[in-house]
Amino acid sequence: MRRWFFQRSLVSIKPFTREHVEIVFDEAKRMEKLKSANLLQNKLAACLFYEPSTRTSSSFQAGMLRLGGKVISIKDVKYSSVSKGESLADTVRCLSSYVDVIIMRHYQKGAANEAAKAISIPLVNAGDGTGEHPTQALLDAFTIFKEFGSIDNKVVTIVGDLVNGRTVHSLAYLLSLFRNVTVNLVSPVSLKMSPLEVNELRARPLVVNEHLQLDARLMSETDVLYVTRIQKERFASAAEYKAVRATSGYQITPEVLSSLNAKPTLRIMHPLPRVSEISTAVDSDPRAAYFRQMQNGLWVRMALLNLILNESS
Amino acid sequence: MRRWFFQRSLVSIKPFTREHVEIVFDEAKRMEKLKSANLLQNKLAACLFYEPSTRTSSSFQAGMLRLGGKVISIKDVKYSSVSKGESLADTVRCLSSYVDVIIMRHYQKGAANEAAKAISIPLVNAGDGTGEHPTQALLDAFTIFKEFGSIDNKVVTIVGDLVNGRTVHSLAYLLSLFRNVTVNLVSPVSLKMSPLEVNELRARPLVVNEHLQLDARLMSETDVLYVTRIQKERFASAAEYKAVRATSGYQITPEVLSSLNAKPTLRIMHPLPRVSEISTAVDSDPRAAYFRQMQNGLWVRMALLNLILNESS
Amino acid sequence: MRRWFFQRSLVSIKPFTREHVEIVFDEAKRMEKLKSANLLQNKLAACLFYEPSTRTSSSFQAGMLRLGGKVISIKDVKYSSVSKGESLADTVRCLSSYVDVIIMRHYQKGAANEAAKAISIPLVNAGDGTGEHPTQALLDAFTIFKEFGSIDNKVVTIVGDLVNGRTVHSLAYLLSLFRNVTVNLVSPVSLKMSPLEVNELRARPLVVNEHLQLDARLMSETDVLYVTRIQKERFASAAEYKAVRATSGYQITPEVLSSLNAKPTLRIMHPLPRVSEISTAVDSDPRAAYFRQMQNGLWVRMALLNLILNESS
Repeated sequence: MRRWFFQRSLVSIKPFTREHVEIVFDEAKRMEKLKSANLLQNKLAACLFYEPSTRTSSSFQAGMLRLGGKVISIKDVKYSSVSKGESLADTVRCLSSYVDVIIMRHYQKGAANEAAKAISIPLVNAGDGTGEHPTQALLDAFTIFKEFGSIDNKVVTIVGDLVNGRTVHSLAYLLSLFRNVTVNLVSPVSLKMSPLEVNELRARPLVVNEHLQLDARLMSETDVLYVTRIQKERFASAAEYKAVRATSGYQITPEVLSSLNAKPTLRIMHPLPRVSEISTAVDSDPRAAYFRQMQNGLWVRMALLNLILNESS
Repeated sequence: MRRWFFQRSLVSIKPFTREHVEIVFDEAKRMEKLKSANLLQNKLAACLFYEPSTRTSSSFQAGMLRLGGKVISIKDVKYSSVSKGESLADTVRCLSSYVDVIIMRHYQKGAANEAAKAISIPLVNAGDGTGEHPTQALLDAFTIFKEFGSIDNKVVTIVGDLVNGRTVHSLAYLLSLFRNVTVNLVSPVSLKMSPLEVNELRARPLVVNEHLQLDARLMSETDVLYVTRIQKERFASAAEYKAVRATSGYQITPEVLSSLNAKPTLRIMHPLPRVSEISTAVDSDPRAAYFRQMQNGLWVRMALLNLILNESS
Repeated sequence: MRRWFFQRSLVSIKPFTREHVEIVFDEAKRMEKLKSANLLQNKLAACLFYEPSTRTSSSFQAGMLRLGGKVISIKDVKYSSVSKGESLADTVRCLSSYVDVIIMRHYQKGAANEAAKAISIPLVNAGDGTGEHPTQALLDAFTIFKEFGSIDNKVVTIVGDLVNGRTVHSLAYLLSLFRNVTVNLVSPVSLKMSPLEVNELRARPLVVNEHLQLDARLMSETDVLYVTRIQKERFASAAEYKAVRATSGYQITPEVLSSLNAKPTLRIMHPLPRVSEISTAVDSDPRAAYFRQMQNGLWVRMALLNLILNESS
């Protein structure tokens, strides 16, 4: 099964089975133990970022370097000469003659797939617009797995902006590979997940509920509270934005957690960066898992790079 | 002869003899076999790019890293604080106390020479404005050599924008080191190579012909068709630009190749990026050598870096 | 004493004793001998620069790479998405889960301290606005030490812009750890060091004199002439700027050195980049120490990185 990953592009989490996900989890746990290892010596990665994402780019670079590999970082390509009139296919074909893997962030949905098809080396999708961000979904799932020892039977409540919920949709898809998982989608009307995407999830072995607010009933049965950023620019008016933010449940504070009867075993996650969706007063609560989640991002990306580039171990 | 390269700056191809070029070819073939090697361990390069050139920068970085060396990448210096009032000499002198070689792209002709004279470590010119781009000329020549086994007796037809033909002029100069080479320069009147440059080439052991159009007679005797980018902004009017593009021979398509009687052994080259000078339908034609040419860029740059930084092997 | 540095953030030179400074000097001399060494294998640094500083960033990167370590470079964060609404604490906490040390340049005084407190890995302050730039002060002191064999009993005359004299103030503080040092502060009225800072220095075991001009009496007793950049934008009017520049002593030329009776053993220093404060005609004078000073920056930064990240040697 490990061989499934070798030299394979990671564009979407759609081809993953539960077994594939568990291989990634095993490899990520191994990476956490190793922390550094010379497994990818002489392997060279290009980080090709058409839009800035320092966080994702840094963790991929750190992962490659910690495995003894090397990195060329190509940033802000959108505004640089590389893309001046040149097709995406030509750009990645060019790079693919210099390196062993391309890690690409692009602003357009579908770009990762288009690029992967143009080259004969593997490509890792580090986010393609409103498309997918498969390594984020995998690190999210890995975090739930690590925090609870299992993903089966969990109630995962996702709060915030679900319109452009690239991360959210991929995560829910991954969760459907496990047994008896419930996903609660909580967002104001204007930030709801599209009916198309909700239906896609409901077609999977997954219980999907939609809510407009995070109330005590919902909170008290939640195992994982996954908070996403609510961006001001998504709202029609500043007033609407203010109204939503003021709603209890859209800013997680120690008071909200206690007044809504959050479980003592709750885990709070966030893809970061956060602005004020989660008060810093929550950081010291052992239920706050978002910094551990970020750390897991390194292990999961190291795992994936090693699975893709290293045939034997 | 190998020692000639050691610690020598590569500013221009003018000091090269045929023997020097053949040493580069030999070393490049060796690099192609090695692909990666720890020949430059503990060697540190600075990529100092005063104007963006992701492609050239990436292949130099990849070359250095594949040889076990290390790289500091300094980009878009033009707009950064480094150059704020500081002389080029001071900037490179500074860098030269940190690294073992400086790879520099600059927007001004002559900058590479000025910089090389200011420092006691070698400098590699990665393009200085309308000046030279010697590694491009060498990789172009290497490509012809590899595709045919020899450069002697070849007819090389160069099509497109020859006004600012930095690459073209250096390539033609290099070709003149070989025996019985014919260079056909094909461009619309407004994009012709300057008489000064043409005369310089004619003073060399080289047959140089000028043409306004790529016709069947020319194509049918051509061994290497070297296509360059025609940039819209070079034309006085959009109409003129359109007129030239519409001319058969300024966009290479499968139809053009066949209607103009291109040889079955023809090789089509392009320094890339291409916009539409060569139709993507040509990519799958075995005569399309531009992606192999790009790949050769890695081997040639590895060869040069190793020759310059590695005394023994 | 060496252990004092291990895993310690370097935010300010204030906690340094003379013994600490001498450990840095010893380690820097060792680094100069080693030039390259695999002492920090598997160590990963993040260079997090909120404002551009190619010179400082390059020497830190070169230092880390020469020690066998690895580097992720994150530049111009000020304008990138990382900082969009995210707190500095969250940003560095994130990075600290990927790397072993953060080297940070920030535009705000106090930022280095704030960041260091948020993380459990060491942070090296590469300049925080009008705050401190401790590695610059240490490399300056190291240069004086190397040029004379000792810092004790030296007369150090600092000329130029002392208003935002981040470097100058830290250097003077460091000098006060040595015996019988005199610091002459020379600047036009509008660029004087703040009375608060002058008094802080006078409270130390250090003779501090203020002057408006560099005259022959001052020059002839000076061991180290430390010149700083006078930036046009600091002046109320272009006329005032011109007047100051025209004053003998604000542009160091061979003529000024000779007419003001500079010692044959004088050493001229400058943090670079220089614009025209020191004429290039001075560069070949053996008393010009600024290029050696810049080179020392590499050895001192290597020394500090090794002391901080390497427990044993």
